[in-house]
Amino acid sequence: MPQNSISIGKYLLYRLKEVGIETIFGVPGDYNMVNLTTRLNVLNCRVFVATNSLHMDDKDLLWGHDANELNAAYAADGYARVQGVGALVTTFGVGELSAVNGIAGSYSEMIPVIHIVGMPNTKSQASGAVLHHTLGNGDFQVFRKIFSEITVANTILKEDTAMQEIDRVIRHSIINVRPGYIGLPIDLVDVEISVPSWPVKPIDLKLPENPEKTHKAALKDIISKIEQAENPIILVDACALRRNMKKHVHELIKVSQFPTYVTPMGKGAVDEADKCFRGAYAGNVSYDEIKKEVLESDLILEIGALQSDFNTGGFTYHVDADKVIAFHSFNTSVFHATYEKVAMNQLLPDLIKNFPNKKGKQLGPRPEGPKADQSSQVIDHTYFWANIPRFFDPRPIIVAETGTSSFGAINMKAPKDSIFVTQILWGSIGFSVGAAVGAAVAGRKQDRRVYLFVGDGSFQLTAQEVSVMLRLGLTPVIILLNNDGYTIEKLIHGDGRDYNEVPMWEYSKTLQYFGSELKRNLKSGIQSKVGLQLKVETRKQLEEAMEKTKSQPDKIHFLEVCMPQMDAPRELLMQVKQ
Amino acid sequence: MPQNSISIGKYLLYRLKEVGIETIFGVPGDYNMVNLTTRLNVLNCRVFVATNSLHMDDKDLLWGHDANELNAAYAADGYARVQGVGALVTTFGVGELSAVNGIAGSYSEMIPVIHIVGMPNTKSQASGAVLHHTLGNGDFQVFRKIFSEITVANTILKEDTAMQEIDRVIRHSIINVRPGYIGLPIDLVDVEISVPSWPVKPIDLKLPENPEKTHKAALKDIISKIEQAENPIILVDACALRRNMKKHVHELIKVSQFPTYVTPMGKGAVDEADKCFRGAYAGNVSYDEIKKEVLESDLILEIGALQSDFNTGGFTYHVDADKVIAFHSFNTSVFHATYEKVAMNQLLPDLIKNFPNKKGKQLGPRPEGPKADQSSQVIDHTYFWANIPRFFDPRPIIVAETGTSSFGAINMKAPKDSIFVTQILWGSIGFSVGAAVGAAVAGRKQDRRVYLFVGDGSFQLTAQEVSVMLRLGLTPVIILLNNDGYTIEKLIHGDGRDYNEVPMWEYSKTLQYFGSELKRNLKSGIQSKVGLQLKVETRKQLEEAMEKTKSQPDKIHFLEVCMPQMDAPRELLMQVKQ
Repeated sequence: MPQNSISIGKYLLYRLKEVGIETIFGVPGDYNMVNLTTRLNVLNCRVFVATNSLHMDDKDLLWGHDANELNAAYAADGYARVQGVGALVTTFGVGELSAVNGIAGSYSEMIPVIHIVGMPNTKSQASGAVLHHTLGNGDFQVFRKIFSEITVANTILKEDTAMQEIDRVIRHSIINVRPGYIGLPIDLVDVEISVPSWPVKPIDLKLPENPEKTHKAALKDIISKIEQAENPIILVDACALRRNMKKHVHELIKVSQFPTYVTPMGKGAVDEADKCFRGAYAGNVSYDEIKKEVLESDLILEIGALQSDFNTGGFTYHVDADKVIAFHSFNTSVFHATYEKVAMNQLLPDLIKNFPNKKGKQLGPRPEGPKADQSSQVIDHTYFWANIPRFFDPRPIIVAETGTSSFGAINMKAPKDSIFVTQILWGSIGFSVGAAVGAAVAGRKQDRRVYLFVGDGSFQLTAQEVSVMLRLGLTPVIILLNNDGYTIEKLIHGDGRDYNEVPMWEYSKTLQYFGSELKRNLKSGIQSKVGLQLKVETRKQLEEAMEKTKSQPDKIHFLEVCMPQMDAPRELLMQVKQ
Repeated sequence: MPQNSISIGKYLLYRLKEVGIETIFGVPGDYNMVNLTTRLNVLNCRVFVATNSLHMDDKDLLWGHDANELNAAYAADGYARVQGVGALVTTFGVGELSAVNGIAGSYSEMIPVIHIVGMPNTKSQASGAVLHHTLGNGDFQVFRKIFSEITVANTILKEDTAMQEIDRVIRHSIINVRPGYIGLPIDLVDVEISVPSWPVKPIDLKLPENPEKTHKAALKDIISKIEQAENPIILVDACALRRNMKKHVHELIKVSQFPTYVTPMGKGAVDEADKCFRGAYAGNVSYDEIKKEVLESDLILEIGALQSDFNTGGFTYHVDADKVIAFHSFNTSVFHATYEKVAMNQLLPDLIKNFPNKKGKQLGPRPEGPKADQSSQVIDHTYFWANIPRFFDPRPIIVAETGTSSFGAINMKAPKDSIFVTQILWGSIGFSVGAAVGAAVAGRKQDRRVYLFVGDGSFQLTAQEVSVMLRLGLTPVIILLNNDGYTIEKLIHGDGRDYNEVPMWEYSKTLQYFGSELKRNLKSGIQSKVGLQLKVETRKQLEEAMEKTKSQPDKIHFLEVCMPQMDAPRELLMQVKQ
């Protein structure tokens, strides 16, 4: 072997580590990146065995141990939302196709997830063998074709171009914040390839430079518009988070003192303790005062907009282009003019540096939502979402399931430097439980704790990931909102039909059922210590329980919170009316 | 409205019922076939509301209440394996994509499943709105494109061709025994369309007629080959089941008295009590005597062959074309000659009617597998698979998970008129739990009980469907084979790695956790009565438990069977060696 050579499997893992991936999610499978000490493609009992010297038991590259592939995709997505990029490994056919919805969600919501698929060996593929995990028609390209619809780059590795292709897919995935797909035939895992030097040059992840003149023209235009404005505001949206613009947003607020708002997908991009922060804006779903403030503004600095139905109060956004400066990932528009290829990652710092002498209006006290009835012990949504943040640890990761929880979280007061993990656009129920695993794995290194909010119906789709949390030694606080069925549907249809009823489980025994009290035989020896697992029915019980979770940060907690069957967050009710 | 008119939603459900579907599986979702008494596309809390007068609460068309969409697809597949055809309904994007692996499995294994997808309204689609459950790019065709790779016919309904398209997809799906896809925009559900007459003529599901001369030539050729043979045998495979040839197979055995064998995918196609039945043939994985008998035969009547790796002992089938008459769904080959378009559904009856005066050899006693050590109380695989059939109710449905269970079932003695539900080709772990729901729903009407065999690792992928069994009042016997991890992988790799360890759950509390002891609020009022839920560690315990399941056929039972960690069925060990 030449000195500068490395096996394809090692190279791939090396690159994943280079871009910041420290845990790979997935389910073992027989076509996964196997160490061919023996023939493995005879079995379905999905095994994951990586190369000898750089395998998944390595301390610096951990394995996610997911219960199924959809949950693994959700976990990789949740991990990427905290860590910047995520990865999962599945086996061919059965494994990868179980992850389709998760990967499509990452595409829709703009999350870079590298999906590695262990494939049958090149010889079987060339001969069109009728292998298990195939459609029986000798077509080994068909699953990649499916993924080409929901990834930004995809490849099936070949020996001679493996290095370039691995780099290409990773680069495109990260630059475009969308998933990438890498198919790896098992017989290529240990094939050595030459690299120009060692260590290899890092993958180039820089965005293209803004064209100088267009950039300058845009900046000048923007400064002039700001100077003319009487009542300018800042509205921060999803792509501010996707493009890591949090720091710039903070500086922009500091330098401008403009009243600042977030969309539902922009939650977490702004320090809500900042005196300029006013609240969440989502058209008619907003608090009335917030809506009034936004609509009365004559200039909106809109950062990273993503105007989907649920992110705009059902398209009741009413933000006219002729008062909007829209900072996007790859272009900028000022009212009706577009400055092509002027990306916000370069424009925002320049704007901050050259910010005109203009300060935002000082508005009155921040608008508040409806007050909960103080005399009651009932845990209704008005009480719940207003009070729960009091009990968060600093810098929490708030994972809110689509539906009741994600709407409830819109006006939740977020502690400084919170991360929100929600799917406002894709909206796949069950996502939150898998995503919480990934978010908690990434959060552990950042000393952030996960608070998972999930309804009973959604929990049932992906409940088994709680067992993965226990196995990985994670310490989230899981809050299951039990309102016994698809409540909101019942509200809409009056007499709920049978299909809106969700069977009741013994939720408060979840940790126990998933083995929290069993001695584990796992070689890793890691297992979560168990804190609370109980059902709470009054505010007093809830508050006491939440206090306990604070005092036991090294444990996993599971609270089943009983809520009135026909109650819902104000924001969800407003959305339904649109 | 003209007299002969019907809404598109009603028409679709009418056709599903016509072809034999009495339960539709799925998960409620907001773009499902909604009754537009109110706007529903604002919510993700997936609701299913069908048309007013023909809705899913109808007594003659039931709703499957699945916990998630992959499980619903598995259930529809399991249902179709018992009932002949199945259906599921999911919502757009998030719902349908969760079912991709299940539908691909039905494609691979040749199971007709109609997948109905509730879509956003035509107006939103035409405008390319950034709705939730989309990729955010205005493309409403992308998911259908994905399904076009794994369905035999697909459509998105339009008002003017809805009737023809519904009929086309259902017809192609059933005739080709593969899945079909019907996208139904919500605003079209209640649109009335004209039908030529009422009731409409049933969908034509007849296969094309065999070309007369080719048919006759084939028959003559076959009869001559049979007359010349000295040692003819019958080998029955997957497509004999898929094409409902069980009756013909039975008659062929009766008229010929040829020694008869089944492949792993042919299990259930032959009455194993018949004195002509010899056993299962899968190349090197077969019992030695079986292999000898098959290889010594000079003429093999091979019915419905599907020669995948696991169905042929890893391509060690060694059945040479020059002694095989292969009866297929749409053609027939006699040695090296092919008779195009001569389908077995017409050829077999004709052959039986004109069968030459030739009887098969009488062979000795049927070959038996290895004997279990009688003195032991350990529930090893040799003991288990040989003894468990003693306790089956008549005409059982045996659902065997891919891997340990499906290999263990190959030589299991099946009672008369058993149905086997396995995925030998597609092999997706977790399939069996979902499929058991569908099989049990269909089996209930046929007075058949489901016996589900699933390992601990596989169970974890889809465990929540047990809650659906309880909800639907099903009465399967669930047998969880607990060997604490991916045993076979450990065997192969010597010292198992951490990723081959599956976290231990409190399996014997499964029914309880999923709510068996809770009072249900469900309007349907159905809930399974609970029989045994326990852990068995000795043969005596197992046998006593199985006796009890026999005496309590109206209850659901859950047995966690502890097996030695490094034990495996003989057939699986043989397969690994190939």
